[in-house]
Amino acid sequence: MGLDSVQLTTFAAVVNEGSFEAAARTLHVTSSAVSQRIKALEQVVGQVLVRRTKPCEATEAGQALLRLAGQVALLEHEALRAARGPLAGGAVRTRVAVVVNADSLATWFLAALTELPPEFTVTFDLREDDQDHTAELLRDGSVMAAVTAQNVPVQGCRVERLGAMRYLAVAAPRLATRHFPDGPASAAFAAAPMIALNRKDTLQHRFLNRVTRRRLDPPLHHVPSAWGFVEAVRLGLGWGLVPEQIALDDIAAGRCVELAPGRHLDVPLYWQHWRLDSAILNALTGAVQTAARSALR
Amino acid sequence: MGLDSVQLTTFAAVVNEGSFEAAARTLHVTSSAVSQRIKALEQVVGQVLVRRTKPCEATEAGQALLRLAGQVALLEHEALRAARGPLAGGAVRTRVAVVVNADSLATWFLAALTELPPEFTVTFDLREDDQDHTAELLRDGSVMAAVTAQNVPVQGCRVERLGAMRYLAVAAPRLATRHFPDGPASAAFAAAPMIALNRKDTLQHRFLNRVTRRRLDPPLHHVPSAWGFVEAVRLGLGWGLVPEQIALDDIAAGRCVELAPGRHLDVPLYWQHWRLDSAILNALTGAVQTAARSALR
Repeated sequence: MGLDSVQLTTFAAVVNEGSFEAAARTLHVTSSAVSQRIKALEQVVGQVLVRRTKPCEATEAGQALLRLAGQVALLEHEALRAARGPLAGGAVRTRVAVVVNADSLATWFLAALTELPPEFTVTFDLREDDQDHTAELLRDGSVMAAVTAQNVPVQGCRVERLGAMRYLAVAAPRLATRHFPDGPASAAFAAAPMIALNRKDTLQHRFLNRVTRRRLDPPLHHVPSAWGFVEAVRLGLGWGLVPEQIALDDIAAGRCVELAPGRHLDVPLYWQHWRLDSAILNALTGAVQTAARSALR
Repeated sequence: MGLDSVQLTTFAAVVNEGSFEAAARTLHVTSSAVSQRIKALEQVVGQVLVRRTKPCEATEAGQALLRLAGQVALLEHEALRAARGPLAGGAVRTRVAVVVNADSLATWFLAALTELPPEFTVTFDLREDDQDHTAELLRDGSVMAAVTAQNVPVQGCRVERLGAMRYLAVAAPRLATRHFPDGPASAAFAAAPMIALNRKDTLQHRFLNRVTRRRLDPPLHHVPSAWGFVEAVRLGLGWGLVPEQIALDDIAAGRCVELAPGRHLDVPLYWQHWRLDSAILNALTGAVQTAARSALR
């Protein structure tokens, strides 16, 4: 097809940075140069590739090219490093874009990044999303890998099981005493305030269905931050499902009590990544698997 | 104008819940009932109010009605509580939607919510956004109040200063030794990896400009979670600006060191809220001001 690699890089920068101006700054060229390259690429492909919104987005036609641009950049970077030797490679950094579910990002995932051998000069462009929605960013080419609950491989991706994140239902002692004096009864769960991250987060509802075998609709707060969520539970705003590691610490410290001892929710997590023979992607996959083995079940 | 309050509530539920189906579940009616009410409301107003996207969004015409719906719901709730007495009010909960910048949500804000007198039976629908972008949700009617860096009042809103959140530039000792052996030199800041929450987060760049008086473009990681950001700094992925309270703890514990002692960045924060004589909004404003006084400068 003979696509111009400068045009491709420019296109990826516009989508990744969100605007023609930001892409121009990153690439150290003028905005009009960016604009001309995008127009030229769109003419070659015969499709509109960038939706000129705020932020700019890849069109459906653009998504295939966005992934291609990321893959070419990764392979080019590795070929150059191999050709020039590891010392010269230090100046060029490759962008490694990964989407991670909120609870993994707040607990075990970051340690994996620091385990990457130092010869890989990369910058991480992490995204956070609900574990049931992470695959969309893989599909549209914005990220090269995902920590996700979705085990059906996205086209062109490989899936590996990481283990399960276990959640326990906990609440502040004050809230538990007030709303659950007789333990985890259905009537108590129907009336006690509950916390979820946001509308996409259905963990609490799934746990409720399983424990009470009823479809309950309790008062619901949204606290859209993994850390804020845990803090809100500790402060007694409502009960919620907290990753086991944090929950056990909080229970031991007396900050929280378990609402339904012996009951839990396990969420299997997967590592989906581009099917690409890349040293960086392979090393990252190894580091993520190692970190997951010690943190997940 | 004589708008039907059931139609108005239904419209708000569609936008707040994100779909006709979710609104139907919340309101305990069928999807087709929701659909009919929205169509009827759109006919009365003479404008399309809901963009049928995933999630559903209010059109520009819809935004004015969304705010109206929220205000009417708040006032109705308070009038009913006053008419029926506080005990009867317990069954009905009012949705209180507030957008909060990520660092406030991760530090001082949640404590304010638990200080609300218990007679207010509300559910909190919190949103998280960058402090420079929070006003958009106020403008489009999705939230009734915001913790924001924007001090220009959104139309129909009142602004009160909360104080400044102070940020210190910190890094893991290992990273500081490697990249800043001679202190906060411009050359060091140009080469040391830096972390930002995401593209909207310009705090680090602002600090760099101020301290080095140069426009630097260092290697940049994005870690889009307030807690993940702090963890990434501690793990040595890069340096970053961390809220003073957390930074001082980390420095005292030896987890981090300050990169430019004596230098900081203060971000003034404001409380913007609907201009509405509502007991709940007044109580929330009081609680937020109290919490801010002890946490901000």
